[in-house]
Amino acid sequence: MRNESELNGVSLLGNTGVKYPTQYAPEVLETFVNKHPDNEYLVTFTCPEFTSLCPKTGQPDFAKILISYIPREKMVESKSLKLYLFSFRNHGDFHEDCVNIIMKDLIALMDPRYIEVKGIFTPRGGIAILPFANYGDSQHQEMVKQRMLASFPDNF
Amino acid sequence: MRNESELNGVSLLGNTGVKYPTQYAPEVLETFVNKHPDNEYLVTFTCPEFTSLCPKTGQPDFAKILISYIPREKMVESKSLKLYLFSFRNHGDFHEDCVNIIMKDLIALMDPRYIEVKGIFTPRGGIAILPFANYGDSQHQEMVKQRMLASFPDNF
Amino acid sequence: MRNESELNGVSLLGNTGVKYPTQYAPEVLETFVNKHPDNEYLVTFTCPEFTSLCPKTGQPDFAKILISYIPREKMVESKSLKLYLFSFRNHGDFHEDCVNIIMKDLIALMDPRYIEVKGIFTPRGGIAILPFANYGDSQHQEMVKQRMLASFPDNF
Amino acid sequence: MRNESELNGVSLLGNTGVKYPTQYAPEVLETFVNKHPDNEYLVTFTCPEFTSLCPKTGQPDFAKILISYIPREKMVESKSLKLYLFSFRNHGDFHEDCVNIIMKDLIALMDPRYIEVKGIFTPRGGIAILPFANYGDSQHQEMVKQRMLASFPDNF
Amino acid sequence: MRNESELNGVSLLGNTGVKYPTQYAPEVLETFVNKHPDNEYLVTFTCPEFTSLCPKTGQPDFAKILISYIPREKMVESKSLKLYLFSFRNHGDFHEDCVNIIMKDLIALMDPRYIEVKGIFTPRGGIAILPFANYGDSQHQEMVKQRMLASFPDNF
Amino acid sequence: MRNESELNGVSLLGNTGVKYPTQYAPEVLETFVNKHPDNEYLVTFTCPEFTSLCPKTGQPDFAKILISYIPREKMVESKSLKLYLFSFRNHGDFHEDCVNIIMKDLIALMDPRYIEVKGIFTPRGGIAILPFANYGDSQHQEMVKQRMLASFPDNF
Amino acid sequence: MRNESELNGVSLLGNTGVKYPTQYAPEVLETFVNKHPDNEYLVTFTCPEFTSLCPKTGQPDFAKILISYIPREKMVESKSLKLYLFSFRNHGDFHEDCVNIIMKDLIALMDPRYIEVKGIFTPRGGIAILPFANYGDSQHQEMVKQRMLASFPDNF
Amino acid sequence: MRNESELNGVSLLGNTGVKYPTQYAPEVLETFVNKHPDNEYLVTFTCPEFTSLCPKTGQPDFAKILISYIPREKMVESKSLKLYLFSFRNHGDFHEDCVNIIMKDLIALMDPRYIEVKGIFTPRGGIAILPFANYGDSQHQEMVKQRMLASFPDNF
Amino acid sequence: MRNESELNGVSLLGNTGVKYPTQYAPEVLETFVNKHPDNEYLVTFTCPEFTSLCPKTGQPDFAKILISYIPREKMVESKSLKLYLFSFRNHGDFHEDCVNIIMKDLIALMDPRYIEVKGIFTPRGGIAILPFANYGDSQHQEMVKQRMLASFPDNF
Amino acid sequence: MRNESELNGVSLLGNTGVKYPTQYAPEVLETFVNKHPDNEYLVTFTCPEFTSLCPKTGQPDFAKILISYIPREKMVESKSLKLYLFSFRNHGDFHEDCVNIIMKDLIALMDPRYIEVKGIFTPRGGIAILPFANYGDSQHQEMVKQRMLASFPDNF
Ligand SMILES: [Ca+2]
Ligand SMILES: [Ca+2]
Ligand SMILES: [Ca+2]
Ligand SMILES: [Ca+2]
Ligand SMILES: [Ca+2]
Ligand SMILES: [Ca+2]
Ligand SMILES: [Ca+2]
Ligand SMILES: [Ca+2]
Ligand SMILES: [Ca+2]
Ligand SMILES: [Ca+2]
Ligand SMILES: [Ca+2]
Ligand SMILES: [Ca+2]
Ligand SMILES: [Ca+2]
Ligand SMILES: [Ca+2]
Ligand SMILES: [Ca+2]
Ligand SMILES: [Ca+2]
Repeated sequence: MRNESELNGVSLLGNTGVKYPTQYAPEVLETFVNKHPDNEYLVTFTCPEFTSLCPKTGQPDFAKILISYIPREKMVESKSLKLYLFSFRNHGDFHEDCVNIIMKDLIALMDPRYIEVKGIFTPRGGIAILPFANYGDSQHQEMVKQRMLASFPDNF
Repeated sequence: MRNESELNGVSLLGNTGVKYPTQYAPEVLETFVNKHPDNEYLVTFTCPEFTSLCPKTGQPDFAKILISYIPREKMVESKSLKLYLFSFRNHGDFHEDCVNIIMKDLIALMDPRYIEVKGIFTPRGGIAILPFANYGDSQHQEMVKQRMLASFPDNF
Repeated sequence: MRNESELNGVSLLGNTGVKYPTQYAPEVLETFVNKHPDNEYLVTFTCPEFTSLCPKTGQPDFAKILISYIPREKMVESKSLKLYLFSFRNHGDFHEDCVNIIMKDLIALMDPRYIEVKGIFTPRGGIAILPFANYGDSQHQEMVKQRMLASFPDNF
Repeated sequence: MRNESELNGVSLLGNTGVKYPTQYAPEVLETFVNKHPDNEYLVTFTCPEFTSLCPKTGQPDFAKILISYIPREKMVESKSLKLYLFSFRNHGDFHEDCVNIIMKDLIALMDPRYIEVKGIFTPRGGIAILPFANYGDSQHQEMVKQRMLASFPDNF
Repeated sequence: MRNESELNGVSLLGNTGVKYPTQYAPEVLETFVNKHPDNEYLVTFTCPEFTSLCPKTGQPDFAKILISYIPREKMVESKSLKLYLFSFRNHGDFHEDCVNIIMKDLIALMDPRYIEVKGIFTPRGGIAILPFANYGDSQHQEMVKQRMLASFPDNF
Repeated sequence: MRNESELNGVSLLGNTGVKYPTQYAPEVLETFVNKHPDNEYLVTFTCPEFTSLCPKTGQPDFAKILISYIPREKMVESKSLKLYLFSFRNHGDFHEDCVNIIMKDLIALMDPRYIEVKGIFTPRGGIAILPFANYGDSQHQEMVKQRMLASFPDNF
Repeated sequence: MRNESELNGVSLLGNTGVKYPTQYAPEVLETFVNKHPDNEYLVTFTCPEFTSLCPKTGQPDFAKILISYIPREKMVESKSLKLYLFSFRNHGDFHEDCVNIIMKDLIALMDPRYIEVKGIFTPRGGIAILPFANYGDSQHQEMVKQRMLASFPDNF
Repeated sequence: MRNESELNGVSLLGNTGVKYPTQYAPEVLETFVNKHPDNEYLVTFTCPEFTSLCPKTGQPDFAKILISYIPREKMVESKSLKLYLFSFRNHGDFHEDCVNIIMKDLIALMDPRYIEVKGIFTPRGGIAILPFANYGDSQHQEMVKQRMLASFPDNF
Repeated sequence: MRNESELNGVSLLGNTGVKYPTQYAPEVLETFVNKHPDNEYLVTFTCPEFTSLCPKTGQPDFAKILISYIPREKMVESKSLKLYLFSFRNHGDFHEDCVNIIMKDLIALMDPRYIEVKGIFTPRGGIAILPFANYGDSQHQEMVKQRMLASFPDNF
Repeated sequence: MRNESELNGVSLLGNTGVKYPTQYAPEVLETFVNKHPDNEYLVTFTCPEFTSLCPKTGQPDFAKILISYIPREKMVESKSLKLYLFSFRNHGDFHEDCVNIIMKDLIALMDPRYIEVKGIFTPRGGIAILPFANYGDSQHQEMVKQRMLASFPDNF
């Protein structure tokens, strides 16, 4: 079981006084320490409630965001990730930009061995868009290539 | 957030005065600038409302079109893509030809690093057809082979 | 759009005077010319209404047939393929034989770069059979191996 | 088996010389005689490939149309129904209007004992519309009420 | 357990010498005695492998047939029912006629308290047909009405 | 929480010394007392692992059995029900007979206010059978009629 | 086809200058005239992209909203309905309140013969809420009762 | 929007100091005031994470609990409902008892016009149990009967 | 079509005098000759009705068995395979043992180029087991490795 | 069939006197001997009823746990695995920690050639977490890499 010192830096989980950000807020992201650095393992988040705005028309867009990464020393805490994703609610950007921005913010936060971000956006005018971006350190360049290949959707 | 100059050349999105083309119209396609050229990422469109005509009988055909690509410097704007696909509405060609034509028009437009187009056509007389075509620049020849292999349908 | 000369040899599509064959009839198969020979692309047919007879008991069998191929110069016309498959209606053979015969007839017709045929037969006495056969020219021997590997069903 | 005189008036089925109408064309509808008038029975058509235009923007719309009726003396022939529905391809009307028009044309054609028409339109801007209309002669007024109640969608 | 005399009249089940009929053959239908005549109960058959021919073009049609009935004194044996339905394989009739004929043959065979027959035919040219017919003796007239109402398809 | 006296008569639950019966064994059924006799409530069991033998050929048959009832004073204990259903494993009877026998045994055991039994048998030779039987005391005759009506399968 | 005068009052459809409201805005709702007032018919909207805020914590909530109504003289235009529902984006209320407010606003707008509103909210802490409200004029009181009964979810 | 006085009595929502009860704890249930008492409407909760213990073996059981009710003056707050259901985690009772206890506790709390509780328990030894209980005041006796009838599972 | 000499050795298909074995009976397996030895092809059987007994408690277990192989000279006849699998009905072994035994018996029978056997067993006490075994001759060692890798279940 | 000496060490299966542990209890895990050490084969467990507590808030979490391994000499007995997983019921840890702990305990117990553990946790606040860890001996390092690659979820 995690003891209190191992929960150090986790301030948002179980804290309800925190205000939900209404503007893009990468600063809310928090981390905790990886207790199993000896083996490379994979952590995936699925966030089916992402919403942002169209940069030209202001129309709301909806997406499911999938984030997968292999941690190095730090791991993102899930409640802070939820608040961060919520902060796109009144932010306007193309779908392709949102996915790249989320990936870059998480790289800056955690310095993961490998990370990928995918957005499954709901259709507009009979067309849906699905952007996918990924990154790896020098030991994970082959994984970057393999996951790119595996991430082409066959039918969605 | 995209500023106005970064939206340069995007004339159709949010513009309702534009007329829907009734003949094959590759000239309606528009692009915007790729802001993340440093990492290769994947963008997929799904267009479940494609319809064209049989070149011999004039009978309407229906398909879902899937387009995936890795951008170089230009990216296709989704509303212009919708208008382009709509322009096949009164156009007669075999299913296999439509998929090849769409791929060639998007290569001419964007010069992508890699692109693939798949058509999932509804059955006629108890038989459905699914054509798949793909293309890559010299750095993506291995991806062309791998994606061809991965695109055989197992059961549809 | 295909012009008339490009539709040369297509006699069955849109022709209703043709009689439905009641015996195994490979001679009804027709082809048209491949207009995109420069890039290798994939065409798949799905035929969920295949029916043949048991060679020993005469009992009717039902299957979905999946055919995928990479064309060289000729392409099979889909209405003629439908009539060909219909000609098995009163033909008796084991499931494994039907799939091999269909593949061999299409190789003789089109000389494709690569082809595969799969039959998903409905269960008899609590057991279903699914045969899969494939073929490639000398440039596609690696594809023959890879597709064989990919075609093991995980759960059907 | 139906003999030739019982197929009287069926001119489109198996006739490929007929041209596909490009304007709203209720006159293509054909009927054949009901051979089982002694018992009331139900016939349903499902037409997943309906497409029309928005009356204000010209944008194409897509729908699945469901038609159910109890015949009196005449029955609508399915190939002529297909051509009729195809004639909406370049016609602009609200979804609610299309469904009412189809129902009224079929009442004029067949004088059925009971009929209902439902349209399941694909979403635009995150909202889908599903209109349902029905009609019965004086013996089927209770059926009109019961089917209206049963046709509220629970989740689509 | 059923003893031998209770299996009286069941000649086809477990008998492989019987030849599969190739023409419409209502005479192959067999019955066994209902051992629970004291309570009204319901028996349903589903037959997903029905195939017949178009009366005008000779083209094969495919359907799932659903038969439900409340037995009086006789019950139809399932293997004989299978052979009977198989005998439509080379028979040409409209979908609406097939369903009415099957129902009338089973009424003549068993004199059931109530019976209904539904055919779920695969689409032709983008349109599928689903006929439904039912019948009841004088004690089951309300059931005839209620089941007709319940058999309108909502979405298929 | 149930105290020990309220568990009186429950001998099989949590008792592993009991032998699995290999012949039809209605005597293994056990009951416990209904603690909520003031309100009529519904209990349903689903048993997807039922298997019996064909009375003529000895071939094994498989089914999902659904049992629903409104208790009076006694309730069937679920582990004893499992053993009882297991005892059909080497028993030969028509599907229609099995469902009637299970219902009659449970009426004799519990004297329920209402009970119904349905069997969803896997197909043989392209035909599946689904028998349904139900029973109610004099206060539940309307429920018997309504549930019979509601139990016609629409598509399975 | 609707002519221009029949499109009178429809100002938002095809008009992209309109700003998306950021506060609860029932005033954006628009209507058009019902051209088929002679028969009662049913119109359903499904809006899978509804989002509002928790009145106590400010946390975003997500829902699919289903609206069904029978029009009298006026019909709600779908693009204005989309903008109205979007105006809940920064509004805080219990799920049960949102559904009642939407229904009351639409009654005030259209005076429909019958209307119902259902919200299918995504789970929080392992519990999901689904509110349903309905209303009818004096001729539709039986429909109010029947639809309430039919709207209990069986499993969601 | 709910103001603060309308949130009176809601102490658990957004309050993380509250301890999760480890014993059956009906006292944690909280209510808020119904703001729409003029129209009868329906509220449903789905709780897929219910777990309790077998009263005889101590083995954990898992269920989805569905609760539907028509409020009178008080409505149960969803976070307090979650804590209440969590309090069964170390409680031993038969499935049929749990469902009856939950219903009786909610009647005592809210005095609803109508309420029903259903438990969909995961199978043990190939048998699953699904109990359903319901209650109504004198104006809702017909609803009690109708919902009982509608709650028989057809196939789960 | 297979002629009679090509059906040599097939004694069980269409023969109803054969008794169903009640003990483990590998001797019932029969083969026929492979008529297409020139190309390596794949044959898969799916047997969703497998049942055996727990070796310690005697409790019945249920599974779907999947068998895939590449034939050399002999092929297993499907009706004999059905009888063989049926012979496990009163046999007690761990799931992992059954799968290995079936694979070894089929290797001894056919000497296939490659074979794999998978068992998808229904859960007991909230845990399901899925064993997978495979084998290849010296030319198929790479296939053994690749199929092992591909057979890890992602979610079942 | 396994004889008694081959069941040596299996004490929990079919033994109901054993108490369910209420604290984390790796000591309950038991093994039996692998009878097929000559071929490498794969065993998978799926445990959809895992529940643990949040280390900070005490809130219960729910998951499906998937365990796959290739045995060396010892195999984990499934009932003891069930009891072990049950012992997390009152244990508080992050999802990522639980999956690593389960994998390490099973490595210590069995010394498998390869093992992987995946947890599919239900969402909290709109975000779900899915951790995956794996391990192999020196002969299975390539498998470790390949399975990591294959275990990225595409959509869950
Ligand atoms: Ca993928
Ligand atoms: Ca893929
Ligand atoms: Ca594939
Ligand atoms: Ca595969
Ligand atoms: Ca309905
Ligand atoms: Ca409904
Ligand atoms: Ca129905
Ligand atoms: Ca219905
Ligand atoms: Ca039903
Ligand atoms: Ca029904
Ligand atoms: Ca309902
Ligand atoms: Ca219901
Ligand atoms: Ca029901
Ligand atoms: Ca696989
Ligand atoms: Ca896999
Ligand atoms: Ca994967």
